[in-house]
Amino acid sequence: MSNADLQQLLDKQAIEEVLIDYCRCLDEMALDDLAALFTDDCAVSYGPGPALESQGRADLAKSLQRMWRWSRTSHHLANARIWLDGDQARAVSYVEAWHERPDGSSATIWGQYRDRLVRQAGTWLIAERRMEMNGSDAGFTVNIYPLDRRPPPDGWTAPDIDHPPQGEK
Amino acid sequence: MSNADLQQLLDKQAIEEVLIDYCRCLDEMALDDLAALFTDDCAVSYGPGPALESQGRADLAKSLQRMWRWSRTSHHLANARIWLDGDQARAVSYVEAWHERPDGSSATIWGQYRDRLVRQAGTWLIAERRMEMNGSDAGFTVNIYPLDRRPPPDGWTAPDIDHPPQGEK
Amino acid sequence: MSNADLQQLLDKQAIEEVLIDYCRCLDEMALDDLAALFTDDCAVSYGPGPALESQGRADLAKSLQRMWRWSRTSHHLANARIWLDGDQARAVSYVEAWHERPDGSSATIWGQYRDRLVRQAGTWLIAERRMEMNGSDAGFTVNIYPLDRRPPPDGWTAPDIDHPPQGEK
Repeated sequence: MSNADLQQLLDKQAIEEVLIDYCRCLDEMALDDLAALFTDDCAVSYGPGPALESQGRADLAKSLQRMWRWSRTSHHLANARIWLDGDQARAVSYVEAWHERPDGSSATIWGQYRDRLVRQAGTWLIAERRMEMNGSDAGFTVNIYPLDRRPPPDGWTAPDIDHPPQGEK
Repeated sequence: MSNADLQQLLDKQAIEEVLIDYCRCLDEMALDDLAALFTDDCAVSYGPGPALESQGRADLAKSLQRMWRWSRTSHHLANARIWLDGDQARAVSYVEAWHERPDGSSATIWGQYRDRLVRQAGTWLIAERRMEMNGSDAGFTVNIYPLDRRPPPDGWTAPDIDHPPQGEK
Repeated sequence: MSNADLQQLLDKQAIEEVLIDYCRCLDEMALDDLAALFTDDCAVSYGPGPALESQGRADLAKSLQRMWRWSRTSHHLANARIWLDGDQARAVSYVEAWHERPDGSSATIWGQYRDRLVRQAGTWLIAERRMEMNGSDAGFTVNIYPLDRRPPPDGWTAPDIDHPPQGEK
């Protein structure tokens, strides 16, 4: 046990707080506070195409103004996993993001943030963020990157287990 | 690095465990265990009106008996953010709460707990809790406080990105 | 404050990372990596019956091939609560698991993992896992163990609060 052990706990905590603050700022549409969580020259991509990509803090804050087309959002982080390397870090976290339109209809996605962070003047900041998606309900049609998933082996067949056993509910 | 760094990690961990235990106790309807997570003179408000407010542990446990009108619930915490100040702390956490009625219909909300905690005899307890809501599906009609969200600037118009690009799924 | 305080923080962090890695490996169908999170003689049960139980790493990896019958899944952990006892630990965590079928239909469950972990050669591994379920939407029909929930006291009646107050939305 050492100071290094304590330091990595502190670093992971600080990084997890950055990931959380992103969600809170986005749901409150506090876009300047949100942009301050990123490096000045950050590269952020939610999917292919200029509408979903941004370069730098100011561009990111401007691009995320698109979230006002929703009347409400709620971004719930999970599974935050962080790998430290001195003043650099990688993080993968899950997000369930619920969105509501002015007409009351909604869209939910189950996605992931894949981040590179750097420590600048003692503060952890997101330098690169790429969003990928496990899936969504039918209400969501934005073209976010799909997540990689391994295919079944040749000859695999699905077992028959999607119903309750005989005599039980 | 210092003892103070370690202490704040321990305090945040202890507080997060209180927030988690609230969810578990509520889903198991272990209301006495739940009430023991609060101070004796706690003030808890899920929304305006006497049915959603309570004062003190005993009143809280009695008020939360209302949750038995659901046949099942599942409260999933996320985004727990804690600010320490000696023996006081503030916390904001997100919750996705799924509820099922005896008839099989369900209601899901995406909300937030806004808490003030105090350390009493070495144990962190919730002294004040206010629940706010980002939103819900149509099944949920309880009048929980809405969350503040900043409005768009004058002249903002929605970009046209809610459909897949030409030629892609 | 002591080395023991720091050690329990490190142990809880290491265990939470195991719980998270399980979710990521399952969603990516990296079943060999997933099995490596368990002891060689692990006992895993998602519900009654041989299709939902497995003994040992190899059997677990083989059994979880059943997840390929879904085209996509996303397992979001929450409420991880860990109790340490030397080289042993217990953990209870929540999971929201979203599943999508090749036909585009989906199934979501709100469940819990109840685990016993052991430290072997410095690495925390899951020795026993039992899954329980708070509930699911109508799309999910696998027979997972139900979670215990206390019944209301005799004479309890439901309050009338599931509608907005007069004059408010």
